[in-house]
Amino acid sequence: MADKPKRITPRLLKGFRDLMPETMLARRRLIETVRTVYERYGFVPLDTPALEYLETLTGEYGADSTKEIYDFTDRDGERVALRYDLTVPLARLVAQYPELPRPFRRYQVAPVWRFDKPGPGRFREFWQFDADTVGCAQMTADAEIICAIIDTLAALNISSFHVRFSNRKILNALLTFAGIGPEHSALVFRILDKLDKAGLENVKLELGPGRVDRSGDPIPGLGLEHAAIERIEEFLSIPAHSRAETLARLTDLFHSTPTAEIGIRELEEISTLLVKAGVDDLHARIDVSVARGLGYYTGPIFEAVLDESPQLGSVFGGGRYDGLVQRFLGQAIPAVGTSVGVDRLLAALTHLNRLPVQKTIVAVLITTMDKSRMDDYWGLTRQLRQAGINTEMYLGKPGQIGKQLQYADRQGIPLAVIAGEDEFSRGEVSVKNLEEGREKSDEAADRQSWLTARFGQQTIRREELAQFIHSILSTG
Amino acid sequence: MADKPKRITPRLLKGFRDLMPETMLARRRLIETVRTVYERYGFVPLDTPALEYLETLTGEYGADSTKEIYDFTDRDGERVALRYDLTVPLARLVAQYPELPRPFRRYQVAPVWRFDKPGPGRFREFWQFDADTVGCAQMTADAEIICAIIDTLAALNISSFHVRFSNRKILNALLTFAGIGPEHSALVFRILDKLDKAGLENVKLELGPGRVDRSGDPIPGLGLEHAAIERIEEFLSIPAHSRAETLARLTDLFHSTPTAEIGIRELEEISTLLVKAGVDDLHARIDVSVARGLGYYTGPIFEAVLDESPQLGSVFGGGRYDGLVQRFLGQAIPAVGTSVGVDRLLAALTHLNRLPVQKTIVAVLITTMDKSRMDDYWGLTRQLRQAGINTEMYLGKPGQIGKQLQYADRQGIPLAVIAGEDEFSRGEVSVKNLEEGREKSDEAADRQSWLTARFGQQTIRREELAQFIHSILSTG
Repeated sequence: MADKPKRITPRLLKGFRDLMPETMLARRRLIETVRTVYERYGFVPLDTPALEYLETLTGEYGADSTKEIYDFTDRDGERVALRYDLTVPLARLVAQYPELPRPFRRYQVAPVWRFDKPGPGRFREFWQFDADTVGCAQMTADAEIICAIIDTLAALNISSFHVRFSNRKILNALLTFAGIGPEHSALVFRILDKLDKAGLENVKLELGPGRVDRSGDPIPGLGLEHAAIERIEEFLSIPAHSRAETLARLTDLFHSTPTAEIGIRELEEISTLLVKAGVDDLHARIDVSVARGLGYYTGPIFEAVLDESPQLGSVFGGGRYDGLVQRFLGQAIPAVGTSVGVDRLLAALTHLNRLPVQKTIVAVLITTMDKSRMDDYWGLTRQLRQAGINTEMYLGKPGQIGKQLQYADRQGIPLAVIAGEDEFSRGEVSVKNLEEGREKSDEAADRQSWLTARFGQQTIRREELAQFIHSILSTG
Repeated sequence: MADKPKRITPRLLKGFRDLMPETMLARRRLIETVRTVYERYGFVPLDTPALEYLETLTGEYGADSTKEIYDFTDRDGERVALRYDLTVPLARLVAQYPELPRPFRRYQVAPVWRFDKPGPGRFREFWQFDADTVGCAQMTADAEIICAIIDTLAALNISSFHVRFSNRKILNALLTFAGIGPEHSALVFRILDKLDKAGLENVKLELGPGRVDRSGDPIPGLGLEHAAIERIEEFLSIPAHSRAETLARLTDLFHSTPTAEIGIRELEEISTLLVKAGVDDLHARIDVSVARGLGYYTGPIFEAVLDESPQLGSVFGGGRYDGLVQRFLGQAIPAVGTSVGVDRLLAALTHLNRLPVQKTIVAVLITTMDKSRMDDYWGLTRQLRQAGINTEMYLGKPGQIGKQLQYADRQGIPLAVIAGEDEFSRGEVSVKNLEEGREKSDEAADRQSWLTARFGQQTIRREELAQFIHSILSTG
């Protein structure tokens, strides 16, 4: 402190962001809903570190993704990395603790880091909710996860969505069929995964000669032959109207390809289980254009799309990755799981007005009109807090009630307690309803109402304050 | 996949750990309790990124702490770092968004990373719960945070604890008095902060010639004169029996030191506010041996200790840091806050048996006795899930009921549904109570009971299964 330190510019790293209370409250509500559904399916919570050995993370995502890993050398000289997803750390964990029960269903809600090109709605740090079942090769595990996705979207009051699913075994057969070697498969899947966002023509360019993206940056092409790209295009044109129809078309196309046949049988099994769970063709479609971008999938793959905001891409994604644990254990352990893009889903729900706006958790502001009465304000504040009411005492300069009410209003605090010498001498306090004025605003319809009573301002006995406020708060 | 990849050893970085469901459920309950109390005090949730510019983080913790920052160069060539605490990112945020309301009370629950020497209960990644009030110079803000700490510990069913507090202004005056230059102050505070763990003799050695720690590593000394160390020792002997007595002793000692006098007056104000809030001398003590290790504190500092496990050190710590925002803004904004060591508090509560043990959130396992009845098990599972009951269908190999019950038992699932050809043909299923057997175990007393009814096994009509289970579950 001896030298005057240089002033540091307060700023965020590119692709990172701060979350303000309103967003945090919405995210909390969202995560709570997702969590409740997955717990109903028997998934238990688990946490792994943000940092892992770099070698734990590399090698399974595909070359392009590996380039996006935040890696560095720590002070011990170890090569370490921030987790890129929650799936590879789970595979590491399953291999590390052989005593874990199996099958093992776990969920994890946590941030992941990717050195991706930042853009609107595209961040380098974002939250994922992952649910995975490890140790079950049966399609029941896959079907169950699809059912949970559907239940989650319903619990979030989204009616217009669908899950679409396919199988990497079929895609692998397609690549063989099109003369594309397995060394290219991860890249092809990553390109196919862009179909919705980039469109068919751009995907074809990326499979072939390459193209230039919207910001003018070149995207190198994979250099596939025209014939191979045509085969892929033909395959992608298989319709997704009904699961039975798509299965029939796939069976025709791959009738003598054993790997594809296994894949088709797996899709059939899932479809049958979905029928028994009451999931119709509208909400779960077999769609061969689903590829998923990550390298490690080996069987069924799936994703969920909101019909009202398809431009957001998939809000759930996942699939079966039977080879991932083997990398650590030497022994294959089947696994299937899904990731929810928490922040993307949150953006979608906010956009669709499906989450009620809540700006604060504070119900009451105790204003401080009279400087000589600070002890009384402190006492009133304590009285309400002890009654379990979320209460702020105004800690700025006492006096100037207008400024204090503006402070409460800006933060969405619904009630202000006002008292000066007059009120105190009568043993009373005033409660002002700040929602009354706000209700005229446009966003009022989306806003959760705090109060059950309509009033402007009301004077009550000081000792009855907590009781009165309890009686008009709609939230506990 | 063409080449067989090398097998990777599944392992954690030194000082990192995985959290299993039982710990996660306990941590969630703990955070929920802390959060509820702080929301009652009007603190709103906020989140900042794990990564910040390195220059944002350095310079305020003290030299020793800066050495513990996880820093690296990212792929853009930027010098970045994982957050070391939640306070400096808050200061950056406050400077960055001048539109934030002020005073501003926020809380944040998140992991922080420190390249510390790992040891028992000492991790390189750990969770903090921070609550801070920015923009208030009055001691009301400090008193409020101390009250919230006390309310939190009470809400966690801990009766035997105390908050102890002091003031950096007094400590600074002490250092001047002892002839120690301000360039040493951060280091002296860091050493004094070890008093509880290392003991007075070791602290004196660290202030003087240095010492060797338990593992044989040398700890260099600060090289202070004998007379200076004696002055510090004399100061540390001021008793903490009653706040009034300690204040009187301090006033005697520093009667003509203006900075110290301001500090003493601040402690008096806090003490008065605590009295009005009903906090006695037993639960909040003025204790001059409190120093806190971080460099940025400028006024009152405080920490909470559990009387039953003092060896754990402080479970809450905090203080006023009026200079931190200035570093970013050029303008001083007063601030005060507290950090809860979530993981340390969790360890303490577990040790003290204050958290009921809950191993899982799953209430029912649907066993699969008969391979030809898989559709029925799938149907029963769906029936319970739709009724809102957390239900697992056994996804391992069907048959072998004993193995399946063992699986449920190991995970603490209280109920198993058993049905084979016989039951199904009568339209019935059996519900087995797995808690009945477990109740004999030692930990039973600490374990939350799932069930309201006592029974071993009961046969019921298949269509009444959900209703029956609902009726015996104590958790909604």
